[in-house]
Amino acid sequence: MIRINENYLKLPGSYLFAEIARRVTAFKEQNPAADVIRLGIGDVTLPLPPVVIDAMHKAVDEMAKAETFHGYGPEQGYNFLIQKIAQHDYAPLGIQLGEDEIFVSDGSKSDTGNFQEIFGTDIRVAMTDPVYPVYIDTNVMAGRTGALGQDGRYANITYIPCHAGNHFIPELPKEKVDLIYLCFPNNPTGTTLTKGELKKWVDYARANKTVILFDAAYEAYIQEKDIPHSIYEIEGAKEVAVEFRTFSKNAGFTGNRCAFTVVPKTVMGYTAGGEAYSLNKLWNRRHTTKFNGVPYIVQKGAEAVYTDEGRKQTRAMIDYYMANAKTIREGLQNVGLQVYGGVNAPYIWLKTPNNMDSWAFFDKLLHEAHIVGTPGVGFGPSGQGYFRLTAFGKAENTAEAIQRIQTRLKV
Amino acid sequence: MIRINENYLKLPGSYLFAEIARRVTAFKEQNPAADVIRLGIGDVTLPLPPVVIDAMHKAVDEMAKAETFHGYGPEQGYNFLIQKIAQHDYAPLGIQLGEDEIFVSDGSKSDTGNFQEIFGTDIRVAMTDPVYPVYIDTNVMAGRTGALGQDGRYANITYIPCHAGNHFIPELPKEKVDLIYLCFPNNPTGTTLTKGELKKWVDYARANKTVILFDAAYEAYIQEKDIPHSIYEIEGAKEVAVEFRTFSKNAGFTGNRCAFTVVPKTVMGYTAGGEAYSLNKLWNRRHTTKFNGVPYIVQKGAEAVYTDEGRKQTRAMIDYYMANAKTIREGLQNVGLQVYGGVNAPYIWLKTPNNMDSWAFFDKLLHEAHIVGTPGVGFGPSGQGYFRLTAFGKAENTAEAIQRIQTRLKV
Repeated sequence: MIRINENYLKLPGSYLFAEIARRVTAFKEQNPAADVIRLGIGDVTLPLPPVVIDAMHKAVDEMAKAETFHGYGPEQGYNFLIQKIAQHDYAPLGIQLGEDEIFVSDGSKSDTGNFQEIFGTDIRVAMTDPVYPVYIDTNVMAGRTGALGQDGRYANITYIPCHAGNHFIPELPKEKVDLIYLCFPNNPTGTTLTKGELKKWVDYARANKTVILFDAAYEAYIQEKDIPHSIYEIEGAKEVAVEFRTFSKNAGFTGNRCAFTVVPKTVMGYTAGGEAYSLNKLWNRRHTTKFNGVPYIVQKGAEAVYTDEGRKQTRAMIDYYMANAKTIREGLQNVGLQVYGGVNAPYIWLKTPNNMDSWAFFDKLLHEAHIVGTPGVGFGPSGQGYFRLTAFGKAENTAEAIQRIQTRLKV
Repeated sequence: MIRINENYLKLPGSYLFAEIARRVTAFKEQNPAADVIRLGIGDVTLPLPPVVIDAMHKAVDEMAKAETFHGYGPEQGYNFLIQKIAQHDYAPLGIQLGEDEIFVSDGSKSDTGNFQEIFGTDIRVAMTDPVYPVYIDTNVMAGRTGALGQDGRYANITYIPCHAGNHFIPELPKEKVDLIYLCFPNNPTGTTLTKGELKKWVDYARANKTVILFDAAYEAYIQEKDIPHSIYEIEGAKEVAVEFRTFSKNAGFTGNRCAFTVVPKTVMGYTAGGEAYSLNKLWNRRHTTKFNGVPYIVQKGAEAVYTDEGRKQTRAMIDYYMANAKTIREGLQNVGLQVYGGVNAPYIWLKTPNNMDSWAFFDKLLHEAHIVGTPGVGFGPSGQGYFRLTAFGKAENTAEAIQRIQTRLKV
């Protein structure tokens, strides 16, 4: 008799974005004339930059001729892209990476979801709360958690609350943990850590043989100094940290699928007997066995992001979204709402008025202002009483949404 | 202390294709003038069909404008592609599939590698021998096997030998097994099962609550009648079988990455208590949590394969490769070699002369005829004494290779 992985049964039946969709559909049926503006999902709206379009057209043409056709590529990605990543994303920060320390992939969702596979199932996992749900769901599937409690927390996971009370700066866990997920600039809160704060985590990891999975998906949105773009800016991080980056949010690749993961050869994991193994080698085995590379056309598109023109065009996209972030942040502050994030990240995290429940505020915003956002509690129990808006919309819609909040919302 | 997944340490250090590359490099260093022809790896060489190129150019242009830009798509694939698959690949065979029974993905390697995740780790797994290494390696990683024995077999796996002695027709296992991997037309042997033979497996699975993972990557190469193109042509298969298909081998997508997996809602897995759960629901949860969809551009390219022109163009590609297969098969027979496959598949599986060891024949072929193939033992212990040649080369190279075998090889 074929047995299922019963860990899947621990996952709740209804998903955050499915529930949002259900409520929006119901609202639109009752209010067919309403012009609903979506500031909920973290998807980009600007088209791909012209340099990327040109590069992809050229690559499509290469695929049309036997002499320039590309079949299977290296699972880890083409060197032409890996070299650009090392040279433009890391060398200017004083970080030297070997070409075999960078793994090109189809997305940070896949990579942050899959990376836990190379670890034992009896390790202790810690993550900030609220958090990107993929980190936790994939650990549930792997059997590293107990059941989901009434308090919205899985047993055997160390939750590190981030809220206004601690300025969204996570505290080091009191118990020893083996694996830590950190995402800064943070999704969903849009907040950041300074180098000094991130150093505490690297030091903890070095002292405890802990590995940090550092999700830097929103690195390109950093505007302020002293906010690290890469965890490897912190001394010693190459011994303990894996870093995830993506072209989704800096170059509009959400529908084009390209990302990469950095696994320095010096990051170690251990057997029960204490023998050290390089995670680079384990991840390489995983990546080459279960993945077959990113489309050639897409990698050529990603390469173009690193040209002078490409960097200008992607910078302009980020500036556009960050102008939206400013519109949202300041517009909400003007009506007396407490807001966080939106300075070094495309996410604005607002405290609901009068400690309103996240879903109640979702309904209020939808019904009074016809705006869709994301209830903070969907990202974890510490997100209760918070709400996420994103800066990825069109500028005119974003401005209209904020005006509606200012004029229609009964705060 | 972060513990690694120690199951990875059971995997052997050197891989088949790495060892081939090492030997070829050494040979070329000693013989720089030699014109080496590669008939080893299963990668295509013809460029993408013109309809696919056109569709991808159009899709790139759509990504250049805000009004037609596509960000995140459905993780399961766009309906425009799913509908074509159901309508063209299955309906003509009398197989009706719901749109939510087809999951578009980035490759059959990923899907056949990842699918085991939704099953328990204590199930009994069976696979034919020789076999596509991904099936076994991913089960090793998941902890379903013991150590690799001196005989080339992992403990706790049921190997089903396929060789000339049984006409490459696998026998039903004597012990009860829970999960069976079948690939027909077969990689690496190029052999097939008739509907009657496949029915035995479906009947076994229905009787034992076993699931069959059916890899139909080479379905488009079938020429003869009575060879099933889909396992769902067999009565009752929708209760027990999952089917994997790809655009890699029928439309040249090895560097373009698009495939799909069919999971009928009626295929069940069970809890320890015997409660039945639909695998469709479990796989949907896995696929949406750890994967973020295939690039829009690539899915538009795949859709074009189903146009009248696309079907003509891909049929011409297959005919081209199958002409190579005929060249290889008949050429080898002419020098007295025993060959299998190559009739309904792009793979030719030859018995080495005088029961020569697979690697010894590899060296002989490389040194005497300057041809690279794949040692059969690389696919499992029952592949010892066999050798794989592929029909994916250029016609002129393939003809030249066979002429060399006929004139230079000291059989």
